[in-house]
Amino acid sequence: MFDNLENQEDIGKAEFKARVLAIRTELILTQQRLRNSEKSFPVIFVFAGVDGAGKHETVDVLNDWMDARWMETHAYTKPTEEERMRPEFWRYWRDIPQNGEISLCLSAWYSRPLLNYVKKGHSKGTFKRDIVEINEFEKTLKANRTLILKFWMHLDKKKQLDRLEYLSKNALTSWQVKSDDWENVGLYEDFIKGSIKLIEKCDEVPWTIINGANENSRQLEVAETFIKQVNKQLDIYENAEKPQKVAIAPFGSGHDRLGELDLKQSLKGKLYDEKLAELQADLFSLSQKAHRKQRSIILVFEGADAAGKGGCIKRISRALDARQYDVQSIAAPTKEELAHNYLWRFWNEIPLDGRIKIFDRSWYGRLLVERIEGFATDVEWQQAFDEINDFEGDLQAHGCIILKFWLQVGKDEQYNRFKERETIPYKKWKLTDEDWRNRDRWDDYQIVINDVLDLCHTKVHPWHPIASNCKKYARIEVLETLVNRLKNDL
Amino acid sequence: MFDNLENQEDIGKAEFKARVLAIRTELILTQQRLRNSEKSFPVIFVFAGVDGAGKHETVDVLNDWMDARWMETHAYTKPTEEERMRPEFWRYWRDIPQNGEISLCLSAWYSRPLLNYVKKGHSKGTFKRDIVEINEFEKTLKANRTLILKFWMHLDKKKQLDRLEYLSKNALTSWQVKSDDWENVGLYEDFIKGSIKLIEKCDEVPWTIINGANENSRQLEVAETFIKQVNKQLDIYENAEKPQKVAIAPFGSGHDRLGELDLKQSLKGKLYDEKLAELQADLFSLSQKAHRKQRSIILVFEGADAAGKGGCIKRISRALDARQYDVQSIAAPTKEELAHNYLWRFWNEIPLDGRIKIFDRSWYGRLLVERIEGFATDVEWQQAFDEINDFEGDLQAHGCIILKFWLQVGKDEQYNRFKERETIPYKKWKLTDEDWRNRDRWDDYQIVINDVLDLCHTKVHPWHPIASNCKKYARIEVLETLVNRLKNDL
Repeated sequence: MFDNLENQEDIGKAEFKARVLAIRTELILTQQRLRNSEKSFPVIFVFAGVDGAGKHETVDVLNDWMDARWMETHAYTKPTEEERMRPEFWRYWRDIPQNGEISLCLSAWYSRPLLNYVKKGHSKGTFKRDIVEINEFEKTLKANRTLILKFWMHLDKKKQLDRLEYLSKNALTSWQVKSDDWENVGLYEDFIKGSIKLIEKCDEVPWTIINGANENSRQLEVAETFIKQVNKQLDIYENAEKPQKVAIAPFGSGHDRLGELDLKQSLKGKLYDEKLAELQADLFSLSQKAHRKQRSIILVFEGADAAGKGGCIKRISRALDARQYDVQSIAAPTKEELAHNYLWRFWNEIPLDGRIKIFDRSWYGRLLVERIEGFATDVEWQQAFDEINDFEGDLQAHGCIILKFWLQVGKDEQYNRFKERETIPYKKWKLTDEDWRNRDRWDDYQIVINDVLDLCHTKVHPWHPIASNCKKYARIEVLETLVNRLKNDL
Repeated sequence: MFDNLENQEDIGKAEFKARVLAIRTELILTQQRLRNSEKSFPVIFVFAGVDGAGKHETVDVLNDWMDARWMETHAYTKPTEEERMRPEFWRYWRDIPQNGEISLCLSAWYSRPLLNYVKKGHSKGTFKRDIVEINEFEKTLKANRTLILKFWMHLDKKKQLDRLEYLSKNALTSWQVKSDDWENVGLYEDFIKGSIKLIEKCDEVPWTIINGANENSRQLEVAETFIKQVNKQLDIYENAEKPQKVAIAPFGSGHDRLGELDLKQSLKGKLYDEKLAELQADLFSLSQKAHRKQRSIILVFEGADAAGKGGCIKRISRALDARQYDVQSIAAPTKEELAHNYLWRFWNEIPLDGRIKIFDRSWYGRLLVERIEGFATDVEWQQAFDEINDFEGDLQAHGCIILKFWLQVGKDEQYNRFKERETIPYKKWKLTDEDWRNRDRWDDYQIVINDVLDLCHTKVHPWHPIASNCKKYARIEVLETLVNRLKNDL
């Protein structure tokens, strides 16, 4: 992979100087086009590769040549406690740039898997799982318009040794050389083997392999790649025709899980009171157990307007220690959230280990309101089934317990509840024109919900459709499901 | 303070029920008015006081009665690592609500000072300093339109014992009673004495003292306070006349520190190269020392357009370990930032212990562009001198090393640099119409800058005005100042 590369010669100082002027100008113009385009997107540079091959220098140069106000450099060191207490990719998600902005990531998500595999004796299986996670992450970003530019900076063994010696002799660059680096040179061949595997397998986004020994041309190559790729992607987006929207029709098996629910199920007052007290007591002690075991719990509530989400959440939260949980209501995204990947705002809300987060509506908005209203294109919502499964898989792999409830209320019962709301002064505000509009799309919603229950239902994070025409019955069902799951998992 | 309170009787169930309907309706209407008003502001509830006096119950009820989508509950437990590695008030600042939103804080910033003083034997002096910090925090929020509603929930000793027994017997509430609480009852009288001091001294915002024994009336009292205070503040803001802007004139002593600078100072190439290399090497090893000692460093760069801030920052950052520093360029605030207290976005950027943060422009925008352009009212910028001094005082008290540089360029030299920028293709973008407009206000800027250098210049976080007509001279001056300061402080 690197053999031809090592024979490439660097350009001379004079040629470098002659080309820099034009390239800097083009860089600035490209960055401005990116920021100002209506079809703007985020750009992530990844600099991985051999220590001493010029990753830091390249980052410095780009910061120098472009408008640094819209760029952020991220050098990921040992994770902090808040980072360790969340899934590994949380910190990378937190840092993703928004449309028109650029982030420069040093080593990023490539460094740890390689070190673990080559040096710390992690198994091939673990290395493979790391690769799967990287691919899922990059795929989700790329499929939603983030341009990822990945550079692998290479040096042959002799040049690496020379370079490390040079760097460590200079007071200003010696920090770039850690004691580990000398050790790693001893493992040079193993690192190269591991790197080749990583480069070949992490192919959701193509790599540009750079000869780090060529101090002049390596910088121009990175800059030219940015100019070319950004303009190309902008041309495509700006010239794309507005996609035709297809009519709402089943995307999955079409299996009518909602129709199978017996909405007539109900529960009377006294039995409800007894069960509620019992389940809340169980829930409280299980939540304490989860806290002791430092497991986080994520509860997702979805359902039509007036299905009783708020009431269910209240019965749960009353049984929890106020210091250990948060309820997150999801409204329409802010401008800043809209300028990011749609999962960004949910990643930002992932609880610390040992805490409980209750989502009143969630990332499933992508597959519900965004699909119905056309806020997501057909391609976007179609790929979102996988993206959301990957997202929940990441949480689950970290040890989160995820439960998802769909509260299903009948069309007539919803009408009664709307009418009731209109008559109670302190509930009137809960009813908006949008609720009536959503009601008009009732049948479409049943189709898209069935798709969600079909395609985002897995053994480890299943959906629980709950018959909710009787509020008391629904609350007890939810609590029982939750208590049983926690008993099983803890 | 509490004697009369203990004799107040609770209202009966029937009366409570009769009043709740009207109060819930008014609560919702008030919250909607708050959200929709053009003069909207943030609201913070603080619930402090005796354990068992109903803080949690009141928070539950408010979440129930109002629209929870615009409310957030914060129960501050043991600080996480990321919180401990920053000034104490960082986590409170991070959580302040934006205009139209409400946060409910349990115990908040009152719990730790009281415990430390009564139980952990902290000195009176420490307790006093804690009180000063609380007052500064609340004053800064209040003066910039945040409505803080503070409730002290009281119980007499016998009622507290009864209440703790009752809570601990119920499976759902037993978590509210920690083993500490029983210990604390033994110190009841000491806690009351400390509480009275805290209530009396933390008087930037008035308290409402609530008899926690009255389970019905305590809820209504809290709700009524919110309704009354929010509407009162909205009435005031909505009816206020637009303030007249006064002409730009010295607000401080009028001392012309900028005029005293000898802008002709310069430095030649070879000497510059030598000094630069030497200072960068020093800076690198000092930055490593700061990292080992886990001291954070904050560098603030301000100066007219084209004064050379970027060039200075580059000479510094090149001498730092890329994993240990961030450069933060401050542009115009986003919509979300504008809806928060102006210091919020800077608090969010405070570095972890052991890290370096370089601000290219900063919170001084409040006293520069916002004063000049009238984005801040006269009252707002006038109080900002103190607020900014308090802010930097908090950072310094935590152990941050703060250096502030003003790069002063002459009016003619600025003109030359503007003209030069126009001719270099990859620098043209740096020059905007705004730069020319700012130049037209040159004399006004000299006045407001001198005010900043006068009123925000303290021994522990002094301003360093730097003569910058010669870029090389300025860079060496900045580096020397920084190196000397670090040598001294570390």
